[in-house]
Amino acid sequence: MSQLSWFTEAHQASGSSIGFRVERLLHAEKTPFQTIEIYQTTDWGNLMVIDGCVMLTSRDNFLYHEMMTHPALFTHARAKRVVVIGGGDCGTLREVLKHEEVESAVQVEIDERVTRLADSTDPIGPAEGLFNAAFYTSCYKALRHGGILVQQSESPIAHIELIKAMRSAMRTSGFQSVKTLPFPQPCYPTGWWSCTMARKGGDLVGFRERGAISKTFPTRYYNADIHRGALAQPEFMREALGD
Amino acid sequence: MSQLSWFTEAHQASGSSIGFRVERLLHAEKTPFQTIEIYQTTDWGNLMVIDGCVMLTSRDNFLYHEMMTHPALFTHARAKRVVVIGGGDCGTLREVLKHEEVESAVQVEIDERVTRLADSTDPIGPAEGLFNAAFYTSCYKALRHGGILVQQSESPIAHIELIKAMRSAMRTSGFQSVKTLPFPQPCYPTGWWSCTMARKGGDLVGFRERGAISKTFPTRYYNADIHRGALAQPEFMREALGD
Repeated sequence: MSQLSWFTEAHQASGSSIGFRVERLLHAEKTPFQTIEIYQTTDWGNLMVIDGCVMLTSRDNFLYHEMMTHPALFTHARAKRVVVIGGGDCGTLREVLKHEEVESAVQVEIDERVTRLADSTDPIGPAEGLFNAAFYTSCYKALRHGGILVQQSESPIAHIELIKAMRSAMRTSGFQSVKTLPFPQPCYPTGWWSCTMARKGGDLVGFRERGAISKTFPTRYYNADIHRGALAQPEFMREALGD
Repeated sequence: MSQLSWFTEAHQASGSSIGFRVERLLHAEKTPFQTIEIYQTTDWGNLMVIDGCVMLTSRDNFLYHEMMTHPALFTHARAKRVVVIGGGDCGTLREVLKHEEVESAVQVEIDERVTRLADSTDPIGPAEGLFNAAFYTSCYKALRHGGILVQQSESPIAHIELIKAMRSAMRTSGFQSVKTLPFPQPCYPTGWWSCTMARKGGDLVGFRERGAISKTFPTRYYNADIHRGALAQPEFMREALGD
């Protein structure tokens, strides 16, 4: 690829597409699990694509990693042990390790090549086996009382039915409180994404605001105001989710 | 157009593109000011395109119209007179008229054809003449003490320098307080947009929360929590804007 061209992902389920202008393909590889491509873009740093789906770009991945990590860890009184399932590029793990209360963090990733090739992108995608009641029940069993599961939960505007189903499965699996936090994510369909927290015992209403205000590590998106803002549910979500 | 195809806007300045799957072109017209196209999409209702740029879709325009209207009107103690400049499809005007304190509302639109053809989309775009100090000075003169100007201010992640320049021009024109509120907007570049409020006298810190909580009209995105959340500035915006 010597001339500028565009990598575009046509997202069939939402009838919308997102593309990036690319300078060249840096790497392409078929692993036992999937096909990974990495492009150098003109404006978004490096772009990781798995099986044709945009995972993240190095310019906007901070949004995802920070929102997968800090709301949950500033809600929990003192999360000592953390597991990142499908952590891919280690971006979420990097954010987790900023918290000094965390004593042990384990990352599980099916495809080592994603981690090895990762250029600060996050290959967590909708893996069917991680979105059902059986998985949530395993998580519930693994967590202590007060423990929190946080999972990416797609686009509030395009996937509200999926979010509803996820939340329902989480509750069925025993989780007492469930909360969906929207955040911007330019490289994912509709540019608007979310994570959903589920808690074993205890609620998800408040968080350690003082801790978030006086955090000792830098972030680019997250702060206490953003956390509070992300707990706000748009009217259509309130109606659909009864939250 | 008998087969399904995609309308894609390649946004050169940000090196990203957004597209929609379309069923057919409903209308195309060259007015004295611009070229207007309206497409029927598979998932996003009707799509209005002006000079090749996506204006809005009927599925996601509520985000824009609500955020251009309600934060400003719930910040002002009692906005009696409202002017919508470049109101296009009247969507913002529709939201304005939900406020019973508003006694008169005037819409100014350069291209009557946009308003006539509009299918609930909003053709407000970056019109250079509306983004400079001369325009802000005119607005400042036209407003009473405590009056608020609200303007769409592009993408927080792609256009932070433009936002900075706008805010600086607003202050130079005499506005005492300036505040930028981010919100999701799937059909605009990066899917993440913003509006900026500027106030002649008075601040923009608080708003009439009780009024927003007990509002007597329906919205799909806006509510008091969303308003508070939109006042939160991501870390990178704080740093760039000093806000």
